[in-house]
Amino acid sequence: MKAEIIAVGTEILLGQITNTNATFLSEELAGMGFDVYHHSVVGDNGGRLQEILEVADARSELVVLCGGLGPTTDDLTKDVVAEFVGEALVEDGPGLQKLQEFFAKAHRQMTPNNLRQVLVFEHGESLPNDTGLAIGIFYQKPQGTAYLLLPGPPSELKPMFLRYAKELLAKKMPQQERLLSRVLRFYGIGESRLVTELADLIDEQTNPTIAPYAKPNEVTVRLTVKCQDEATGAALLDQTEEAIINRVGEYFYGYGEETTLEEVVVSLLKAQGKSITAAESLTAGQFQSVLGNVSGVSAVFPGGFVTYSPEAKEQFLGIAPELIDQFGTVSQECAEAMATAARAKAQTDYALSFTGVAGPDALEGQPSGTVWIALATVSGVTSHQYHFTRDRAYVRHSAVMAGLDLLRRALLAE
Amino acid sequence: MKAEIIAVGTEILLGQITNTNATFLSEELAGMGFDVYHHSVVGDNGGRLQEILEVADARSELVVLCGGLGPTTDDLTKDVVAEFVGEALVEDGPGLQKLQEFFAKAHRQMTPNNLRQVLVFEHGESLPNDTGLAIGIFYQKPQGTAYLLLPGPPSELKPMFLRYAKELLAKKMPQQERLLSRVLRFYGIGESRLVTELADLIDEQTNPTIAPYAKPNEVTVRLTVKCQDEATGAALLDQTEEAIINRVGEYFYGYGEETTLEEVVVSLLKAQGKSITAAESLTAGQFQSVLGNVSGVSAVFPGGFVTYSPEAKEQFLGIAPELIDQFGTVSQECAEAMATAARAKAQTDYALSFTGVAGPDALEGQPSGTVWIALATVSGVTSHQYHFTRDRAYVRHSAVMAGLDLLRRALLAE
Repeated sequence: MKAEIIAVGTEILLGQITNTNATFLSEELAGMGFDVYHHSVVGDNGGRLQEILEVADARSELVVLCGGLGPTTDDLTKDVVAEFVGEALVEDGPGLQKLQEFFAKAHRQMTPNNLRQVLVFEHGESLPNDTGLAIGIFYQKPQGTAYLLLPGPPSELKPMFLRYAKELLAKKMPQQERLLSRVLRFYGIGESRLVTELADLIDEQTNPTIAPYAKPNEVTVRLTVKCQDEATGAALLDQTEEAIINRVGEYFYGYGEETTLEEVVVSLLKAQGKSITAAESLTAGQFQSVLGNVSGVSAVFPGGFVTYSPEAKEQFLGIAPELIDQFGTVSQECAEAMATAARAKAQTDYALSFTGVAGPDALEGQPSGTVWIALATVSGVTSHQYHFTRDRAYVRHSAVMAGLDLLRRALLAE
Repeated sequence: MKAEIIAVGTEILLGQITNTNATFLSEELAGMGFDVYHHSVVGDNGGRLQEILEVADARSELVVLCGGLGPTTDDLTKDVVAEFVGEALVEDGPGLQKLQEFFAKAHRQMTPNNLRQVLVFEHGESLPNDTGLAIGIFYQKPQGTAYLLLPGPPSELKPMFLRYAKELLAKKMPQQERLLSRVLRFYGIGESRLVTELADLIDEQTNPTIAPYAKPNEVTVRLTVKCQDEATGAALLDQTEEAIINRVGEYFYGYGEETTLEEVVVSLLKAQGKSITAAESLTAGQFQSVLGNVSGVSAVFPGGFVTYSPEAKEQFLGIAPELIDQFGTVSQECAEAMATAARAKAQTDYALSFTGVAGPDALEGQPSGTVWIALATVSGVTSHQYHFTRDRAYVRHSAVMAGLDLLRRALLAE
């Protein structure tokens, strides 16, 4: 079934906000089996919105509108769509009650324009707004196009879609086929090399499709299968995944759009009862901060050191000034001494150290992007040199990811 | 002059990528004085693209297309637009030379489909691609709508627009009026309170307009003025800014869409020749990592401590176990002891400490979001308790921002 998305809001047309609602809704609708053929954005202008509705009504079976459900006179989506489909606007009972309670609790007088937020179509279905005040609407013309009206703020639109609209659409507009997706995550292989390794698979495969995406310091591969039931789809995904892992499995570290390398590393540490510390120069605490993203990391991470200046390396870690004088701070020797000292001081199983040139300027005669990372373990210390490119933020992020992967590989080798 | 933006790409309609090109182009075009009234997205489908072109041609004076200029058979924007406006496609000389050099350098055979990337309109203008191979096109129908064709990847589209298209548009389609924007940044005041303080200004002001935006842990206010020359526009912006600063200047910390609180703080430290260290528990290095974002921070930041566990607080900072036993780690006493010890160990002018409950679980009987931040200076130590909301990442980010602002205010009070 053909669907399209219309976002209403002048601020999108001015480039002040990005239309991320269209991204979210497209992925959700595609997953349910809808064919989304158009996105449009129109300003807070009744005439132009009506023109778009005429086009959409003729070409789509489902039209999703987002934005323009609020209390101000700019918010005209409900009025325009109601007139377009010939529906009367009436107050939604539960929505009105919630609105009145909200103002009572805030000890504020409710101005009449707020009532606009709880207006719904007389013959439509109301969608509750758990995270805001504007009520959503679903309405299907007799034997005609269906309309779904959602609020503009993503914090309201997403819960309303996932909790209420999705189920309603599945019931009212059941689809023959659905899409299932699986995301594989890779670190340590560039997109172009990954595409080369998988070229024939990508070319030959039609169901599932194989779509690689380059992300900062990693690559994901999204497998998407069209299927009538989940079991058939999952089996097809399994087959394709196996073919991919056979070629580039060395770089695979996890599944899912949201899974992070630090989560995988912290899980491995926990599973093996091992602990980690760090001594950070160029990354200035970023590696440890990234570990801190993971809830429950305290079981495996007591803390560590940020030794940005040579003096801090000496004072906090006891690195000999002579070592720094002889080899510099951006050196294998300094990196290994930092990791070894941090491991001894924090009494952990593992310690990583990061030293290098974040840029933009060179340091100690070494160009921006030169990085040494050392890993101290019970059996000694190893170190690796890297030459990262791009800007300061990217060099630091690249170093953090490289450190996480060194630790991941060490844990897997246990 | 009316303009609209058409993005071509099935991956946008599947929700796999977000249409950030439309955001970028909208802001640029609005700044030049164009009225952008529509955004559309259409898949890699010739028939549907042609339908959109017919609508766009009738309603807009400038149509900007992005995407679909690449080498594959999916990339059909040039073909469809060329046929629509009745132009022949010819090879672009400099583009062809660059393409041939690219393949020669890579020691790869150029497949014929690559030539598609350097096809341009016989009577159009070519736009060089400094960061890719697909050539851009500008073409204006005799006394009719103008078309600008840009590549899809933002890394190619942005440089091509800024270096070549912008100047060409200004020459070929001069605008009467332009927009000037200024962004003011505020910390420590919520959007709703700021809007209340400025309510009459926001309601009465039409040129400049005043648009507040809530961002994570800060609020920006964008002033946008329509003007015929820059001096007049700047004077109007100055007036409005002054009226705003008179009311909420206490929370103002800087200008610009990209300026960060850490940059402001590091500048103040440098200007005053002062240094900073930190002892971080709940933030786990994030405060120091954020300082490390700023190039040249080494002049004011030697390093510091990540003391996540009670043992690390004892071992790295010498916090007495009795203090932790008596008051707990999430306490004023612990925060102040951490800041004082960090300042002494790192021998800096200032030291901040962060301790609290990042969540999602409670700690030491205190709910998630409870945070203590202490600031040690030459004249002693002060501390502040906070109760942040939302998730783990937001609590940590809130704490980092609060710490930066404490330091900023201390430096301003010097």
